[in-house]
Amino acid sequence: MSSTTGYAAKHSYSRLKPIEFERDPAGKGEVEVEILFCGVCHSDVHQCANDWSNTIYPCMPGHEIVGRVTAIGQGVTRHSIGDSVGIGCMVDSCQTCEPCKAGEENYCEGPNGFLSTYNGPFVPAEKTPTGENIYGRSNTFGGYSGSITVREEFALKIPAGLRLEVAAPILCAGVTTYSPLKHWGVKAGDHVGIIGIGGLGHMAVKIAVAMGAIVTAFTTSKDKLDDVTKLGATVVMEDDAEAMKALKNSFDFMLSTIPEKHDINPFIPLLKRDKTIVLVGALEPMKGVNNAVVAFSRKSVAGSLIGGLAETQEVLDLCAEHGIGPDIEIIPIQQINDAFKALEKGDVRFRYVIDMASLHKDQVGT
Amino acid sequence: MSSTTGYAAKHSYSRLKPIEFERDPAGKGEVEVEILFCGVCHSDVHQCANDWSNTIYPCMPGHEIVGRVTAIGQGVTRHSIGDSVGIGCMVDSCQTCEPCKAGEENYCEGPNGFLSTYNGPFVPAEKTPTGENIYGRSNTFGGYSGSITVREEFALKIPAGLRLEVAAPILCAGVTTYSPLKHWGVKAGDHVGIIGIGGLGHMAVKIAVAMGAIVTAFTTSKDKLDDVTKLGATVVMEDDAEAMKALKNSFDFMLSTIPEKHDINPFIPLLKRDKTIVLVGALEPMKGVNNAVVAFSRKSVAGSLIGGLAETQEVLDLCAEHGIGPDIEIIPIQQINDAFKALEKGDVRFRYVIDMASLHKDQVGT
Repeated sequence: MSSTTGYAAKHSYSRLKPIEFERDPAGKGEVEVEILFCGVCHSDVHQCANDWSNTIYPCMPGHEIVGRVTAIGQGVTRHSIGDSVGIGCMVDSCQTCEPCKAGEENYCEGPNGFLSTYNGPFVPAEKTPTGENIYGRSNTFGGYSGSITVREEFALKIPAGLRLEVAAPILCAGVTTYSPLKHWGVKAGDHVGIIGIGGLGHMAVKIAVAMGAIVTAFTTSKDKLDDVTKLGATVVMEDDAEAMKALKNSFDFMLSTIPEKHDINPFIPLLKRDKTIVLVGALEPMKGVNNAVVAFSRKSVAGSLIGGLAETQEVLDLCAEHGIGPDIEIIPIQQINDAFKALEKGDVRFRYVIDMASLHKDQVGT
Repeated sequence: MSSTTGYAAKHSYSRLKPIEFERDPAGKGEVEVEILFCGVCHSDVHQCANDWSNTIYPCMPGHEIVGRVTAIGQGVTRHSIGDSVGIGCMVDSCQTCEPCKAGEENYCEGPNGFLSTYNGPFVPAEKTPTGENIYGRSNTFGGYSGSITVREEFALKIPAGLRLEVAAPILCAGVTTYSPLKHWGVKAGDHVGIIGIGGLGHMAVKIAVAMGAIVTAFTTSKDKLDDVTKLGATVVMEDDAEAMKALKNSFDFMLSTIPEKHDINPFIPLLKRDKTIVLVGALEPMKGVNNAVVAFSRKSVAGSLIGGLAETQEVLDLCAEHGIGPDIEIIPIQQINDAFKALEKGDVRFRYVIDMASLHKDQVGT
């Protein structure tokens, strides 16, 4: 065991504060990673606030982790000490179900689903029929901390040419948007609509552009117009009725990245016949959809959750190849509570990344 | 022009009563059909009551028409005088758009969509950008009448071996459920769930069984249990929490045929990963769906509208081949207002079909 520090919320109403805790040493097939950078995802805010009524406290968020391998366990073949690696939303999965075998660990159908990087098993023991917990852990601590130990398969390779701090948000925001773009077969020349231009949305625009799509981004924030145009997309204000009308039946695929309950009815007419709008941001009950509009052109409304390990590696490689990545703002961990507030206001351009070297200030100071 | 009689509603609040009107003679490429039977669809009730705020009065419903060709226009090659033909929800379409060329006239993207068998163009002139009306007709009169004149392509062949009165509901209830079963690739051995066991639902069960699927039907009416078991499906009461729980992640496809706003959230967990639930009954705003449940297994919620001409012929042929058809109750046209009331209560086993010979009683009587 090695002692480390991390920032955690003790209650839904409390600010994140440093706590000391123990990380396991690298066991068989595992790697120990010193965390250098960690992205700040809107989910981190939701989870700390218990917005999904499933938070286990203390809650130490962070699932956009980039670091350096500092120790390897027996039998590790993928990574060596000193390698730069990334860890996303999962640190383990059952490895035996059909999705796991197909490289879609994010849809693990083991009794507990995948093991989340923070907040423990995706399906906690008390929600399984027999109280099972295949991971033997009820909570996990994420990347707002000094180190982490994971199975080597769950550590992705950061390709050369991708700055480590830029790579971090690709591990959630990147793969969450890449996975549905790939799954629904978006290809060069397709017209793609991205709704909501925050951490996920701006990555979705960049990735879709890299895939050769013609991208339109939808926002409610006038002050994002210039920023988004620079990403390679046409920008449309959602309240511009004329512009919305002109785009009727024009999209091959749409992706909503808005991280809370919202109304997708204005966007359904914009899809071409037989096409799909996928919701990745709002993991909660949505406003009702008018099935007349859906049925009249045989459209679909779908959802998608992060991505598998293979897809995560693919999107890291794609970003390196195309020289793209999130637009980030580096912050020290001590500013995390202010960062959460800015995120709630949508006031970020476009992703905060914590420089974990800042953790040492606390250790020196206290 | 030939004078005929039909039953129509003059206002949203009025009962259907006989009116005299004129049908065109068979023009070039058209056939004139003496109507023998017409099914009573739940849409007929909705349309007469102006539930979709788009009814044009007088409203003469009926889009499950079977009859005999009594005259053919110049150049007609598909049908001869005396042939038994069926006419479904459409009597014309633009013939030039991509869906029309692909045999999916039900998704016609011409300026007015397809021409509905009753209530005029699917997209009325005032809802088009330029006020266009390619059909030159603002209202159409359906099959609750003595005769109809249509383009020959829109008259389907009733296969030998299918009783005419049984064939009628296949033209809407049959194809509306067959089309999505086919489009989403249902095959032998698939587990299919059918929600709502009325006119559409009981046909969906029979067709899915004929396709080789293992079918479970969901109902809220205890008194339908025996009836539905006879159709070849396992029946589950929607309020049986244990039964619903036991069916989690078990369906390859689900079809909701409930003809009004309802909650599909209880059914989404029952789909397997990556699978789709399609709504064909409720053409209106639905209750909101929990996107967490949808996204966690990359599921889809879709809609589908009737079917194309080729599919309509396919489902007629499939029913003849498998010796299946709707369970019908024959009524005289004079009972149509009572039939509407029974339909609203869900009190039909399972489809009313009007014997149009009864029209002559009125003609004699008045």
